[in-house]
Amino acid sequence: MTGWVRIVGLGPGAQDMVTAQVQDALAQASDVIGYIPYVARVAPRAGLTLHPSDNRVELDRARHALALAAQGRQVVVVSSGDPGVFAMASAVFEALEAGPESWLALDIEVQPGITAMLAAAARAGAPLGHDFCAINLSDNLKPWSLIEKRLRLAVEADFAMAFYNPRSRSRPEGFVRTLEILQQACNDERPVIFARAVSTPDEDIQVVPLPHATPEMADMRTVVIVGASNTRVIPRALGPIVYTPRSVLS
Amino acid sequence: MTGWVRIVGLGPGAQDMVTAQVQDALAQASDVIGYIPYVARVAPRAGLTLHPSDNRVELDRARHALALAAQGRQVVVVSSGDPGVFAMASAVFEALEAGPESWLALDIEVQPGITAMLAAAARAGAPLGHDFCAINLSDNLKPWSLIEKRLRLAVEADFAMAFYNPRSRSRPEGFVRTLEILQQACNDERPVIFARAVSTPDEDIQVVPLPHATPEMADMRTVVIVGASNTRVIPRALGPIVYTPRSVLS
Repeated sequence: MTGWVRIVGLGPGAQDMVTAQVQDALAQASDVIGYIPYVARVAPRAGLTLHPSDNRVELDRARHALALAAQGRQVVVVSSGDPGVFAMASAVFEALEAGPESWLALDIEVQPGITAMLAAAARAGAPLGHDFCAINLSDNLKPWSLIEKRLRLAVEADFAMAFYNPRSRSRPEGFVRTLEILQQACNDERPVIFARAVSTPDEDIQVVPLPHATPEMADMRTVVIVGASNTRVIPRALGPIVYTPRSVLS
Repeated sequence: MTGWVRIVGLGPGAQDMVTAQVQDALAQASDVIGYIPYVARVAPRAGLTLHPSDNRVELDRARHALALAAQGRQVVVVSSGDPGVFAMASAVFEALEAGPESWLALDIEVQPGITAMLAAAARAGAPLGHDFCAINLSDNLKPWSLIEKRLRLAVEADFAMAFYNPRSRSRPEGFVRTLEILQQACNDERPVIFARAVSTPDEDIQVVPLPHATPEMADMRTVVIVGASNTRVIPRALGPIVYTPRSVLS
């Protein structure tokens, strides 16, 4: 059989937010590769080999997927959310570019998923309803100075902002600094959404004005969304709705 | 029966990119409201009333949905892509905030979908694999000066960029100016992806270096993605792969 690689997104957690396209890829796979908690979301079955691996070995994982496909295996690389947003797709293409020329003939496809910021935004209302940016706050792979520069320019552009990987156990100081920069640069009461483990049993959504946001409101499973200057909050007995209007004229 | 509103995303076009959550909402609906081509994607059935409406009546549509739910109907508001990204969710919340207080007790939920930029990115590789922004280029609802400011700051921040609504028939000059600004401010050969009607029979993907991008490569059904300064192209016989590396140190 001809080998292939499908780099797929499992969405934020709930089974009913996985697309049929991705379910089909998993049903046809001989091998599933990914970070331990994401591979754990794939049901075992006869003929399917699961290859869970630890965090921070993305390039090894990517090479493994391409090598198996070159041997004729049907390989699905799983990410949570969307594979193209701070996830495995870039790692696979880095490995492809650095690998043997024969890999360039492999059948490779990326299959999108519901990325964390859009699942979080949906739970809160529509905070990303107008121009926005997405920033990975992890400084494993880029200097902190670049993160800080992007934060300041994003405020100046008046984008709503979504932050991935706000706070790792090993480097909590980055998010402390992020909030300080935003509180000083925005200097207003715009809403901040802390969305943890959206669509899972551990889901927790908090909405606070920016001056009340504190670092410990985020952990490794949280996506943080900060409104633009015109983002609004509708108070309700059922819980607040946060949305950014479509127009900046009104 | 108790009324409710589900504001859902139908994804970019292919049926297998609609989530099961959204399919369930459509199966339970008494009424479906939306722009004509999106409502046309919902199969008619007994007990379901379809309410297709023309473009640029988003607020009327939103009020209609809320009013029907207040009468006890089960209402699904459809958008293509994700409802929270330049789509109907913000319009519904604008109508909610301006409407009667009783609407605040309504059961309203946003259900995410695969937004156009992520479907387009998946087809091209992983151009949004690192920090990026999304900008609506329509100047119906904001002044052109703000769009231009955001473009310049996005280049300075070195975000990859996704552009929605690049070119309407009535105002083609905005996208002409956008490309001029980017070509001058970036002054490099970074890749630009023109992704038209992704996942439909009309799909067309073009990848060109920024200096070769021309306005007529986009129309109303196109999402345009412009790489960051470090975005790479892997040439292949099967077609180029565009990706942004995870690291900016390498």
